[in-house]
Amino acid sequence: MSKILRLNMVDKSFRWEDVKPDWQGLGGRALTSRIVREEVPPTCHPLGAANKLVVAPGLLTGAPAANAGRISVGGKSPLTGGIKESNSGGLVSIKLARLGVKAVVVEGRPENGGFSVVKISKDGVEFLPADEFAGLGNYDTMARLWERFGKGVGVMSIGQAGEKRLMGASIHFADPAGRPGRAAGRGGLGALMGSKKLKALVVDDAGADPVPLADREKFKEASRKWAKYLMEHPVSGQALPAYGTAVLINIVNEAGALPTQNFRGGRFEFAEDISGEHMAELIKQRGGKTKEGCHPGCVIQCSQTYHDKEGKYLTSGFEYETIWALGANTLIRYLDEIAVIDRLCDDYGLDTIEMGCTLGVLMEGGVIPWGSGPAAIEMVRKVATDDPWGRIVGNGSVFTGQALGVDRVPAVKGQGLPAYDPRAEKGVGLTFATSPMGGDHTAGYGVAVNLLGCAGGGNPLKKEGNIELSRNLQVATAAIDSTGLCLFVAFAVLDNPDALQCIIDMINARYGLSLTGDDVTALGRQVLKDERSFNRDAGFTKAQDRLPEFFKENLKPHNVTWDFTDEEVDQVLADL
Amino acid sequence: MSKILRLNMVDKSFRWEDVKPDWQGLGGRALTSRIVREEVPPTCHPLGAANKLVVAPGLLTGAPAANAGRISVGGKSPLTGGIKESNSGGLVSIKLARLGVKAVVVEGRPENGGFSVVKISKDGVEFLPADEFAGLGNYDTMARLWERFGKGVGVMSIGQAGEKRLMGASIHFADPAGRPGRAAGRGGLGALMGSKKLKALVVDDAGADPVPLADREKFKEASRKWAKYLMEHPVSGQALPAYGTAVLINIVNEAGALPTQNFRGGRFEFAEDISGEHMAELIKQRGGKTKEGCHPGCVIQCSQTYHDKEGKYLTSGFEYETIWALGANTLIRYLDEIAVIDRLCDDYGLDTIEMGCTLGVLMEGGVIPWGSGPAAIEMVRKVATDDPWGRIVGNGSVFTGQALGVDRVPAVKGQGLPAYDPRAEKGVGLTFATSPMGGDHTAGYGVAVNLLGCAGGGNPLKKEGNIELSRNLQVATAAIDSTGLCLFVAFAVLDNPDALQCIIDMINARYGLSLTGDDVTALGRQVLKDERSFNRDAGFTKAQDRLPEFFKENLKPHNVTWDFTDEEVDQVLADL
Repeated sequence: MSKILRLNMVDKSFRWEDVKPDWQGLGGRALTSRIVREEVPPTCHPLGAANKLVVAPGLLTGAPAANAGRISVGGKSPLTGGIKESNSGGLVSIKLARLGVKAVVVEGRPENGGFSVVKISKDGVEFLPADEFAGLGNYDTMARLWERFGKGVGVMSIGQAGEKRLMGASIHFADPAGRPGRAAGRGGLGALMGSKKLKALVVDDAGADPVPLADREKFKEASRKWAKYLMEHPVSGQALPAYGTAVLINIVNEAGALPTQNFRGGRFEFAEDISGEHMAELIKQRGGKTKEGCHPGCVIQCSQTYHDKEGKYLTSGFEYETIWALGANTLIRYLDEIAVIDRLCDDYGLDTIEMGCTLGVLMEGGVIPWGSGPAAIEMVRKVATDDPWGRIVGNGSVFTGQALGVDRVPAVKGQGLPAYDPRAEKGVGLTFATSPMGGDHTAGYGVAVNLLGCAGGGNPLKKEGNIELSRNLQVATAAIDSTGLCLFVAFAVLDNPDALQCIIDMINARYGLSLTGDDVTALGRQVLKDERSFNRDAGFTKAQDRLPEFFKENLKPHNVTWDFTDEEVDQVLADL
Repeated sequence: MSKILRLNMVDKSFRWEDVKPDWQGLGGRALTSRIVREEVPPTCHPLGAANKLVVAPGLLTGAPAANAGRISVGGKSPLTGGIKESNSGGLVSIKLARLGVKAVVVEGRPENGGFSVVKISKDGVEFLPADEFAGLGNYDTMARLWERFGKGVGVMSIGQAGEKRLMGASIHFADPAGRPGRAAGRGGLGALMGSKKLKALVVDDAGADPVPLADREKFKEASRKWAKYLMEHPVSGQALPAYGTAVLINIVNEAGALPTQNFRGGRFEFAEDISGEHMAELIKQRGGKTKEGCHPGCVIQCSQTYHDKEGKYLTSGFEYETIWALGANTLIRYLDEIAVIDRLCDDYGLDTIEMGCTLGVLMEGGVIPWGSGPAAIEMVRKVATDDPWGRIVGNGSVFTGQALGVDRVPAVKGQGLPAYDPRAEKGVGLTFATSPMGGDHTAGYGVAVNLLGCAGGGNPLKKEGNIELSRNLQVATAAIDSTGLCLFVAFAVLDNPDALQCIIDMINARYGLSLTGDDVTALGRQVLKDERSFNRDAGFTKAQDRLPEFFKENLKPHNVTWDFTDEEVDQVLADL
């Protein structure tokens, strides 16, 4: 039987708890959001003692299902002031699941004393002083933790940004090679972890039993089909493994939806230079690796190892969103410069989307010149120093806009927008506006339908159909995020009705249940209800479900504007 | 007939407009809040083109009534994101009224070009380039504007903080001696003025006719009594002229409500050193002046000229709130150090309450030591330099808390709290929580009743009576703020029923009306309704009507906590 593990960071104690009956059917995002909803006072200060950091594997995590190893991290967001679930790959999720940990709830805030490392293993839970790790970046932290606790242990850690409780701070997860390229990036949860004085969570599943399966045969059958469907789909089976997520650069640029120069245009002159195709070429030339998974059991393998000109390791998990944010959005055209910033962000523990939006705002305010990689790199480096600029840029795009008196800030609910101009991809634009997460693409990825043609395709430039699209995808995604499955299973699920049935069959076979498609939809709806009710009590209204005013400007090349009325936007999540 | 003057800052044009019928009976805060409510989109960015800066004399301003020369400044607040009215003394209000200007509405936001000075006189309206003033502090700006346009003209200006659009920036008004000691301090309206690229408004009423009075005799009779009542009351007639508002230091300290060390205690060990009594002594020794009015026609004279040890002018308008914020709150015990910071704030154009709360947060975060005047002075000086710390501290207490990851920040709706611990003065505490202005004492000054014993007195330490007290004072204050009368008339009004009748008689005699006390209350209610509906549409809910969590801590010496339930707090303005 799985348990809830509560860590008290004040007296360094822990407690195992049985899972409450109404939490039994929850996992991943459904569970983190429920625990936050029930236990965190919505009006509390995100860095105060009352906030909690919740970490939960998904419902399918740990079982032999392809791409089910994602971890959900939740809490009241330091960045948005609302509820937050941010998920990531890495090793921690599967290991927690194998140890029978349904969720870890990190509680309390030490007033004094240094950082801790908490180690969870079959032998129990240990609080260890982290003096030797405090002040280190994620690269060194993970390397030293592997040295100390054994190669291959799961690590979740923060860098200097999280230690400083900066609102752009992310939480990083060691990938199978022990590198911090994987992150629960969004919403400043690294600052929440920093406020708890938790430098790292180490999870060692040595000696743990396999995750129990109620019906082993049925599970095997469903999971075999499942892997096959994922590999058969052209996006998850071919495009992503070949070029990584950066395959989207050329596609989105062609669609006129690649935000350029702080969302001034939809096409980047030098898109080719930062494309996934070009990246794959460089990787091959320099001896990196194009196909890697962020967790064991991944059959998509969209990650990669990116080397510098000298053929030395530079960064990994080098994503489309990162490359857009630090590239097209800032007019920086050199992939190597972008890779350096990505590396710094992984090391310091900073969300790359937020940092890209922030650098755009810095350029908007004239602090550094448009397109200057060296100036951007110098600015990001300040996050790990005592320079107050580091505190400004590490706190994200809205904060930096306020520091500079700049109002052209692409953000919703305080969170910087991802790599799709909402005027030219209206489906994801509605998700940006209405998701309880703030500006977020993963919460309802209209791009899959409108730009990649899944589920018969849609029109990214017109309003028609996009309200329903965003709603349906937000509901479905909330359910997917609760299973531990990677978001990139969505392509297969959208195009193949059998794929959704596979997920349901796997859940049923894992737990001995008989859920239907309706139950899954109901789960997604319930997640959104939990999240929206938290935000409501935290003081959010429809007024926060709005894009910045400048999206009324005309966007080239399609000459489109953000033309939804407030009433239309409010329809997206009106009836859950 | 009075007119509305609209300034278009983009094309440097202006337009005179007749006053709409339903604006006729409004003035001061009632008018600025109504114009903002009707014309500013509540969800707009405060520094964007859609926000407006509205300046309005009160209903009685310009007429020969004692203490009626206050000016109201309104807009969407860069600091709180809600509606803001901040009022001030100075010369501008009376001169606008005499020129027949019911309100100035500053519109549009220039994308290019430098700052402007706008001059309003009998001869018309002129836009002048402000290149020679840009970058100057308020002291130099005012001095040079008097040099250029004549001694005694009205000046409303911003310093470096407003030019940089920092959220703690205030708008300053030349006092009768041409010094910037008077400010519409709160809510960052200086940043709004900066975003409009308006460095200063100059108002010259030379040659203007006296303000018309519908019934001269009745007005004279009422105004004679009015001045007498003000001077007869011990607070406005004796305490304030003798010691300035800083007379409150010893009183509030004695009451255990003087917030000390970032609201950790209610008594300051060195209160005597920063008291009004001590200040008056120093002023006398050093050749300053204890009794000055902030505008012609003031009979209270709570202002002063404060000299340094060498007997040279240091600062003026040296208020209780300022001395508390920069003194007891930061543990700085030397009045001369506090005076230097006050002087810098007046010069750069910074709200002293916000800066005091900000310095407390900086000390809380360990950036500068508690009680160090020199360190605080150095930090404030950075606001006028390129040092990014200046951008942090100039943006106020909440921003600085976010920069440092400090959650002990005494603020409501983003605005730093004034000089009364809400646990030990629960009446004003309820005003802090519920005022549409954010943490503000002037919006419903329970202190007058609970600590100064007006209207029969009240109990500052108990809940009983304070919900009604805060509500009634908020309604009454909204009406008073619409007349142009100084808040310090409240003592006489609270203790003498004839005084309120005097105000009504003066308004009636000025405009030929026959208003009653009920009409005045209705006006106050309507102002609050306008303001609250703006905030609601801007996205505020009850969740923002809350004090920070740390006020649940016990406060010495009275061992009191903030013990109102949310439901009780929500009763304050539930039925308007």
